[in-house]
Amino acid sequence: MSRGFEQREFETRLNAAQTLMQEAGLGALLLTTEPDVRYFTGYLTRFWESPSRPWFLIVPASGKPVAVIPSIGAALMSQTWIEDIRTWRAPDPLDDGVSLLTNTLNALTRGAVGTPMGYESHLRMPLGDWKRVQAGLHGDACEDAGIMARLRGVKSSAEIAKIENACGIAARAFARVPEIAAEGVPLSQVFRDFQRLCLEEGADWVPYLAGASEQGGYGDVISPASDRPLSAGDVLMLDTGLVHDGYFCDYDRNFAVGPPTEHIAAAHARLIYAVDAAADVARSGTTAAQLFHAMDRIVTGGQRGSDAGRLGHGLGMQLTEGLSITPQDHTVLEPGMVITLEPGIETGPGKMLVHEENIVITDGAPRFLSPRAPATMVQL
Amino acid sequence: MSRGFEQREFETRLNAAQTLMQEAGLGALLLTTEPDVRYFTGYLTRFWESPSRPWFLIVPASGKPVAVIPSIGAALMSQTWIEDIRTWRAPDPLDDGVSLLTNTLNALTRGAVGTPMGYESHLRMPLGDWKRVQAGLHGDACEDAGIMARLRGVKSSAEIAKIENACGIAARAFARVPEIAAEGVPLSQVFRDFQRLCLEEGADWVPYLAGASEQGGYGDVISPASDRPLSAGDVLMLDTGLVHDGYFCDYDRNFAVGPPTEHIAAAHARLIYAVDAAADVARSGTTAAQLFHAMDRIVTGGQRGSDAGRLGHGLGMQLTEGLSITPQDHTVLEPGMVITLEPGIETGPGKMLVHEENIVITDGAPRFLSPRAPATMVQL
Repeated sequence: MSRGFEQREFETRLNAAQTLMQEAGLGALLLTTEPDVRYFTGYLTRFWESPSRPWFLIVPASGKPVAVIPSIGAALMSQTWIEDIRTWRAPDPLDDGVSLLTNTLNALTRGAVGTPMGYESHLRMPLGDWKRVQAGLHGDACEDAGIMARLRGVKSSAEIAKIENACGIAARAFARVPEIAAEGVPLSQVFRDFQRLCLEEGADWVPYLAGASEQGGYGDVISPASDRPLSAGDVLMLDTGLVHDGYFCDYDRNFAVGPPTEHIAAAHARLIYAVDAAADVARSGTTAAQLFHAMDRIVTGGQRGSDAGRLGHGLGMQLTEGLSITPQDHTVLEPGMVITLEPGIETGPGKMLVHEENIVITDGAPRFLSPRAPATMVQL
Repeated sequence: MSRGFEQREFETRLNAAQTLMQEAGLGALLLTTEPDVRYFTGYLTRFWESPSRPWFLIVPASGKPVAVIPSIGAALMSQTWIEDIRTWRAPDPLDDGVSLLTNTLNALTRGAVGTPMGYESHLRMPLGDWKRVQAGLHGDACEDAGIMARLRGVKSSAEIAKIENACGIAARAFARVPEIAAEGVPLSQVFRDFQRLCLEEGADWVPYLAGASEQGGYGDVISPASDRPLSAGDVLMLDTGLVHDGYFCDYDRNFAVGPPTEHIAAAHARLIYAVDAAADVARSGTTAAQLFHAMDRIVTGGQRGSDAGRLGHGLGMQLTEGLSITPQDHTVLEPGMVITLEPGIETGPGKMLVHEENIVITDGAPRFLSPRAPATMVQL
């Protein structure tokens, strides 16, 4: 798996953005978050973990993007295809990039400056500074007309290869779970060791791991690990979002600690069946809502979901991004969309099982990027 | 190291917040980011890695905080000391918590609603939804008067213990670097293995690792790892922010691959000397700017810094938070502040060494939470 992308990948993204910007009448896009900046630059660093410094990328109506960034990032940014890199010594409590950003935007356009303001977005800069930027702009600041969500929702073949590679790393780690998990091992130790396995199998880092090990199903799927030892009758679930070269996988596996009850075995098989049913209809032209109903019929009998809120989502540069598999999301599937299918089923009061796979939409049947789990749970 | 905090820790934080809110004339605080929500609740999950759902915590002028969160988080939130938990099935493209949040705020106060808008903050919700919330509020939305930064800047003894524990885990991992790093090993492999060592030594997860291995110093300190093998004459630097129980350490170590040149050995010793000089003046009442000058005199001869922008920063629930050690930051040190001392020194054109330690300000001399590195570099 080669690192990064060819320059033409970024040129293609830029051309697509500028076409949509022209349609929307935008003079520039202003981007502030890690994935949005990386999308056009390839700028990859874990330094975004620090909230202290804002970073800005401007996509003008024509010409290459312009980076307005803290000077600490200049050396790394200059290794990308970006040429116009303007820096200030951040953090600066008096003017943390505000005047440099405002002046640069004004030099590039007198038109409207679009920035993501819709679903799933946030502006990664202080609101106070944003007000100052808006006050200094020649043009209006407005919504990006959904351009970033639209662009990022459909993956190139190079992006799909990276997600598939991340899925493969997780698959090898999941296959080794019997090495680290057994009755008596504290769940917190399993979490630590599973992250270690992900790294050994090739993950660059492991931004996300959640899971549980409880009797007859678990109460939620977002809890950190407790120190409680695995016990016979538990279902152990591990759900990981590991990263390779800046792209995530996001799927889980369930393991029976000792022989599963018939009830649990049947619930697990039903989840696999729900994934099959979704895969059967996951075609170009199907909507996210239709995928929802295909699974919801099987896991709730058509009660329109649960408190989990959705039965899957888009996937790529972030653990979750883009469409949501809910009754309200009528996004139409297109070839190149990478999504998770994530049905959950109640196994008792306040107890559930959740299963997740990653697929890519194609011209025909979807392709599984995660190797499908068998209907029978692996027993530890 | 016990997990979480006693309830009185949260009560103390809440009381302090409400005192400051009264002084500032705020009817409520609205918090949207992971550390701010966790500060008052103890709500700890890696689920924030997903950008799809907003989360809200309201701190009213009196009484306990109110959580307004996606239903998927209700089970875990109900395990904290928070009692009033209001949920909606997120994500909902038609109303993603906006009306529930607005109604809850209006029921709690007709006064001003403060939210962090200053340095290092961001609002973790879509700007479009924020406009809708503001339009529906009885009171004004305004800046939080710096309350969150002020509260979080001074750590309790329980918080300091958690940071010290994280530092100890990293220390054990750094001590084992000779097991994983030697001439010929690709840097990317060293990065993977170092994260594995952090996990083996007790890290819950490893959100941050940066570093480099280059001849005669490195070009920057934020790059991801390349596949280039370590070579004799390299300086290998690893800088990690690992987490235990929700608190970070953040420090680095430099290693000589083969015998270091006299020039490099002297530069490294000078960095240690700069940390000593800062520690000598890091007392209650000293300013961040004074700390800067104490180190800058030694590493640049008083040129007022470099493109790194600062020579250290606050530390705690985030990798970096709070004050910056710059000439412009006149924050006055107080007992309980945890900071990093992070001088860098130029070793050639575009080349540098950086060293970092973590200390806590006390009534007397600061206490090192990271075990101080010796002036002589460890040789691999």
